[in-house]
Amino acid sequence: MPSLRTRLCPIRRGSHIVHGSCSGFKAHVAQRTVKTLLPDFTHKRVLDLGCGYGWHCKYASASGASYVLGTDISHKMLERAEKINAGSGIEYRCIAMEDLRFPDETFDVVLSSLAFHYVRDFVPLVHNISRWIKHGGEFVFSVEHPVFTSYGTQDWYYDEDGEILHFPVDHYYDEGKREAVFLGETVVKYHRTLTTYLNTVLQNEFEIRHIVEPQPPDSMLGLPGMQDEMRRPMMLLVSAIKSITP
Amino acid sequence: MPSLRTRLCPIRRGSHIVHGSCSGFKAHVAQRTVKTLLPDFTHKRVLDLGCGYGWHCKYASASGASYVLGTDISHKMLERAEKINAGSGIEYRCIAMEDLRFPDETFDVVLSSLAFHYVRDFVPLVHNISRWIKHGGEFVFSVEHPVFTSYGTQDWYYDEDGEILHFPVDHYYDEGKREAVFLGETVVKYHRTLTTYLNTVLQNEFEIRHIVEPQPPDSMLGLPGMQDEMRRPMMLLVSAIKSITP
Repeated sequence: MPSLRTRLCPIRRGSHIVHGSCSGFKAHVAQRTVKTLLPDFTHKRVLDLGCGYGWHCKYASASGASYVLGTDISHKMLERAEKINAGSGIEYRCIAMEDLRFPDETFDVVLSSLAFHYVRDFVPLVHNISRWIKHGGEFVFSVEHPVFTSYGTQDWYYDEDGEILHFPVDHYYDEGKREAVFLGETVVKYHRTLTTYLNTVLQNEFEIRHIVEPQPPDSMLGLPGMQDEMRRPMMLLVSAIKSITP
Repeated sequence: MPSLRTRLCPIRRGSHIVHGSCSGFKAHVAQRTVKTLLPDFTHKRVLDLGCGYGWHCKYASASGASYVLGTDISHKMLERAEKINAGSGIEYRCIAMEDLRFPDETFDVVLSSLAFHYVRDFVPLVHNISRWIKHGGEFVFSVEHPVFTSYGTQDWYYDEDGEILHFPVDHYYDEGKREAVFLGETVVKYHRTLTTYLNTVLQNEFEIRHIVEPQPPDSMLGLPGMQDEMRRPMMLLVSAIKSITP
């Protein structure tokens, strides 16, 4: 349910639930931190898996990409993407990333921002992504951190007064479905270990260049709830390059 | 305090503390899982940082290494290493790894098993290790997992009846000293994030080959407390190769 993507992280202070600071951090990471890992897009063919509103598609196009394909399973998000992030050489397609098919070496760059944890089968997907990328091409993605997804509720553990005690980790090696009830709706995600995320990349002809667990910049630490973001990792960013020779 | 290394992980069942199952898992990882990441030692010059009783030194020598230097700060462990793991071409030296000095490209392989989390300054150490390794040489190490070291107590969070609820994570981005009181003794370790461990390696001319968060093999899951080892990661293993060209 990608439409829930932007409002998945409640921060409870005492007995109150405050939304916004956490999604503000996610937006910061999606729009700023990720950019530090992105390659030069000049004349590149780019695929953005789970593109949502198309921010990165627009950014890649504005940065010189010759062709950008954004895919998502949310019609609503893609409708909005077509409105606010249209551009020369940008195409949006409503399809599950697991159903995509391309000839080998179709793209120079494959991106995905906070979408892979909605996908059940990561290994065949990365196998496909590796085939679709040219040798020497780049693969940059972010996911919710295994620490954040392992327990399932994606919430802090509180004392009787509603104060945060710590963040719980459990069932770490039990990969698979997690269901968090959020604002009355059940959100399904898939937990996998760090080993699975990183070794799957390494085993598919990629060389890892950067691994980042983003933390809020000093300029955001005054926002409500933001200090708590220093207490556990919520996201994991990875950039990798496909081996130059076959 | 490396002499505490083998007995650092209590597993409490109800109100009882049971030692041994966890250190059994650590020993399994140190003696078996690590081996799956080790290179061919034939005619290699090997450095083992924090070698303890010298298991890996003996293994490297028996596997064909031409020279093996094991270093540790524990006289007692090295005395025992000299007795039980002596061998042709093996040398043991009592010195802190931060104080070691070698010419560039002295070794083909540098190993370290569960010792770096006792070291305060990781970045200059990895910088040195990179210099000491020949181009194309290998760096294989294990550490306590950032999930395991972040909170500080290295213990589960229990309910009123002493049953495990989950494992707590807190202060994740606050890298530095952690003190756990264990059997009446204070053990000092240093927590650092996954980002610091892996990016420091990546930024020092290494290409990461494998990342493993070891879990108990099926054959050990019947041992007391071992099922709990499936609930959170305790160790992180990394193998890397130094870039072939300068």
